[in-house]
Amino acid sequence: MKSFRLALIQQLVSCVKSDNVSRAWQLVKQAVKQKPDIVVLPECFNFPCGTRLYPKNAEPVPGETSQQLSKMAKECGIYLIGGSILESDRGKLYNTCLVFSPDGKLLVKHRKIHLFDVHIPGKVNIQESNIVCPGNSLSMFETPFCKIGLGLCYDLRFAELAQAYTKKGCHLLVYPSTFGLTTGPAHWDILQRGRALDNQVYVATSSLATDNDADYISWGHSAIVNPWGDVVAQAGSEETIIYADIDLQYLADIRQQIPLHFQKRHDLYGEVGEQKH
Amino acid sequence: MKSFRLALIQQLVSCVKSDNVSRAWQLVKQAVKQKPDIVVLPECFNFPCGTRLYPKNAEPVPGETSQQLSKMAKECGIYLIGGSILESDRGKLYNTCLVFSPDGKLLVKHRKIHLFDVHIPGKVNIQESNIVCPGNSLSMFETPFCKIGLGLCYDLRFAELAQAYTKKGCHLLVYPSTFGLTTGPAHWDILQRGRALDNQVYVATSSLATDNDADYISWGHSAIVNPWGDVVAQAGSEETIIYADIDLQYLADIRQQIPLHFQKRHDLYGEVGEQKH
Repeated sequence: MKSFRLALIQQLVSCVKSDNVSRAWQLVKQAVKQKPDIVVLPECFNFPCGTRLYPKNAEPVPGETSQQLSKMAKECGIYLIGGSILESDRGKLYNTCLVFSPDGKLLVKHRKIHLFDVHIPGKVNIQESNIVCPGNSLSMFETPFCKIGLGLCYDLRFAELAQAYTKKGCHLLVYPSTFGLTTGPAHWDILQRGRALDNQVYVATSSLATDNDADYISWGHSAIVNPWGDVVAQAGSEETIIYADIDLQYLADIRQQIPLHFQKRHDLYGEVGEQKH
Repeated sequence: MKSFRLALIQQLVSCVKSDNVSRAWQLVKQAVKQKPDIVVLPECFNFPCGTRLYPKNAEPVPGETSQQLSKMAKECGIYLIGGSILESDRGKLYNTCLVFSPDGKLLVKHRKIHLFDVHIPGKVNIQESNIVCPGNSLSMFETPFCKIGLGLCYDLRFAELAQAYTKKGCHLLVYPSTFGLTTGPAHWDILQRGRALDNQVYVATSSLATDNDADYISWGHSAIVNPWGDVVAQAGSEETIIYADIDLQYLADIRQQIPLHFQKRHDLYGEVGEQKH
């Protein structure tokens, strides 16, 4: 299976959770008309960033939203990378991405590892760790197409995570995200293209659409980048769905042409990789 | 010492080695008028890429070119990062960068670690390792300004090298280089900006100027990138000198605003670093 289709949903969300889940249903059904194998929702798709951290919007897994995601995957016969929800578990909260198989089974749960604790005076001041606990594991899952590694938003900044996923054999890295209006224009493209180029993998990011009335305004610009570092599909700021065919033969060709993986000098600088616990 | 000035020379070279060394002298003297603390020459500045690998152009260290570089550094009172020459040592050849202190002393010798063995059908087919042996060590040196890490051209593609230098405390990474017309337009900018952004360091690359009559045509576009990932100075394709003030307070500010270095989860994915031998 050398090629498969990916659809990224760039959703516009409101502060009514049930509306957001309904809208996700509509968008997934719309995406399915293009026959994608995998569909991706954005970070915080059921309750928007900025306000997303209010504990009242948290829910357990399984729970209301996770059950809906499972149904979407099964009814549409797709792998569904369900953006993220605010997960509650034994009194703690997590920013969590749930992935369902085409038969509606939960395949993996990625709890955001790197929390967005950033203070750029006059521009950004968010301490996500005041509310949410970090995840403590890498999250990968197998498909008939390839192995896929997961991150959420700020996880994208950490090159080592992508390197570890690549070392474990992932050929596609997916980051449901919502960068803001400061770091989005400055860093969103470079980070995605850098991860793709350095690791010779496909990288996909699905963002919330831009809502200028929101507390936290998303940059949008969901994208799919190929292993040569080219952006092969990119959204603007509005609600939309973008698609790309992920070509694993092309990935193999790039790795043969520029054989980085055989040329690395781990004897000189070591290497990253999933740690044993 | 929170700020210092860097000058990058983008030199146009011929196939006459003595002419190239003379031209380097002229360009270094021209650069010095802007009072730089550190001046950088490009990879293969004394004999051009493509033909550079002919063993007849190799020389030992110390040798003819290294002595000239030492004199340039001393006469001009600068740190001189001397691009690269083809070094011969006990019957082997290396692509070697020599760095001299303002008193003309050889501070460090970087032998290119990752050799350019790349075959992109119809576009690029170079096997540098057919002629040259790889270096076997990281190369850093201290200045009164900051610690500096060195790479040559293809070394730039290996994120782990930059990560290792950063871990060892380098705040500026310098890569004398000469990307070509295929990978230059595609990857030159992303690689530099990615290294700078991921590691929150300054990155500088000095290239040969474009010579459309050369066997191997250089992309040019020497650049200096700041720790926010912004290109602060960039050449076109012609022979030129570019300058930037390296602001270590700005680097410290970026690291405080987005504290990646404290947020990394080495417990999950390990880390790179200089290996003990």
